[in-house]
Amino acid sequence: MTKTENRPTILITNDDGFFAPGLRHLIRIIRPLGKIVVVSTEQPMSGMGHAITIKTPLRLKNVVKELDYEEYICNGTPVDCVKLGEQVVLKRNPDLVVSGINHGSNASVNIIYSGTMAAVIEACIDGIPAIGFSLDDYSLQADFSHLDAFIARIAETVLDKGLPDGVCLNVNLPKKSEEPIKGSRVCRQAHARWVESFDSRLDPRGADYHWLMGKFENDDKAPDTDVWALENNFVSIVPVKYDLTAYSQMELISGWKFDE
Amino acid sequence: MTKTENRPTILITNDDGFFAPGLRHLIRIIRPLGKIVVVSTEQPMSGMGHAITIKTPLRLKNVVKELDYEEYICNGTPVDCVKLGEQVVLKRNPDLVVSGINHGSNASVNIIYSGTMAAVIEACIDGIPAIGFSLDDYSLQADFSHLDAFIARIAETVLDKGLPDGVCLNVNLPKKSEEPIKGSRVCRQAHARWVESFDSRLDPRGADYHWLMGKFENDDKAPDTDVWALENNFVSIVPVKYDLTAYSQMELISGWKFDE
Repeated sequence: MTKTENRPTILITNDDGFFAPGLRHLIRIIRPLGKIVVVSTEQPMSGMGHAITIKTPLRLKNVVKELDYEEYICNGTPVDCVKLGEQVVLKRNPDLVVSGINHGSNASVNIIYSGTMAAVIEACIDGIPAIGFSLDDYSLQADFSHLDAFIARIAETVLDKGLPDGVCLNVNLPKKSEEPIKGSRVCRQAHARWVESFDSRLDPRGADYHWLMGKFENDDKAPDTDVWALENNFVSIVPVKYDLTAYSQMELISGWKFDE
Repeated sequence: MTKTENRPTILITNDDGFFAPGLRHLIRIIRPLGKIVVVSTEQPMSGMGHAITIKTPLRLKNVVKELDYEEYICNGTPVDCVKLGEQVVLKRNPDLVVSGINHGSNASVNIIYSGTMAAVIEACIDGIPAIGFSLDDYSLQADFSHLDAFIARIAETVLDKGLPDGVCLNVNLPKKSEEPIKGSRVCRQAHARWVESFDSRLDPRGADYHWLMGKFENDDKAPDTDVWALENNFVSIVPVKYDLTAYSQMELISGWKFDE
């Protein structure tokens, strides 16, 4: 694939499967912005985090091949989709990676379980500007119609300016309501968590099994957080980095005498 | 399970499967320090990142039940093991979670793909002091005998002092060599990455498939990094946080006019 007319090459992926309405909506918004390659997952892959496939071989099916638009389906994880898109389909880095629109918020600690955002972080590790879009509505019938201008503007801004090294964007979008979206806010990740529980049952043979359940608990109500933004009908934009070093704690922990 | 004699309760997990020599070695080192619950994965789960199991039910087999020592095998991911250990086995938070000893380094960007470290980060989200141990040697026949004093001291220090809120430890241990380990260093994550490639083949029916390959490339040779520590025969201790917000970039990106 060669770059013609200086149009950017944009890789689109997601974690809800190739048929997900959120992905289809994102493709419609992003398609006018460049030459598009879609590599999406065959199966829904929510909660796959940054998993990669190393024990089984990966398959990549080309399902659409038009001028400036190609679409592939991959049997792996969202991170596999990005790796295959770069290495096998494009054979070079695209100019932008966008992932989503996820059916469900990836605000706060959800980012760490999210396949949508893992794809974005993978692109970021490879030095590609990358944005994840998620709607604060889990329904597969969710209404995405109020988001188009915001998503297009954020993607165009990043195509224009790039992103700082080692930084990508986690964009969460408010659920459709009576009110129009108020605007966007650059936020930090709220310090919330899932309080787990399990729905434990007996199978017909009398052996127990457990379904993972959980309740999102947020005590961090500050107005500079992504959760606050969503609750107040703003688009939240969190700059995200993949260097997990807790720099602020290095001095403290260096003072502990592990060697004595 | 109740706490007797004020001995701490310690949850041990890993991502290489219940039979992995690294897990067995970690159990031997940690067992004298408290009441032990092991919840390990049934299958090797390397590269599973922070995946959780939501589409299929989880099974938990109790395989050992002795005074102050219980062992369970789980069909899910390392993160599932931690959730089940807390909620189904202990029904409360343990005093410490240790994960490993992973067969292979989790220094630098490896942390993001690592099931071993995902288990540690999950415990950290739940407010539990947690440490991941990984040996810079992928062999299942790796020699762990030079590590015992370091691992015990780090675990005892964390049991004694706790860890700051939202911070856990990523400990990587040098491969056995002629020289004794020089000591430990508190480090930052080296800014290295995997350069992917795929081994693409044709199956007997003529359809192509792809095996994920990759080469670790590190241009970050600074002596304050975890990779430098390992290469120079030091134990590396990286304080890790799960808040991925790139705080230093918030001002820059706030200046971009997404709403105009």
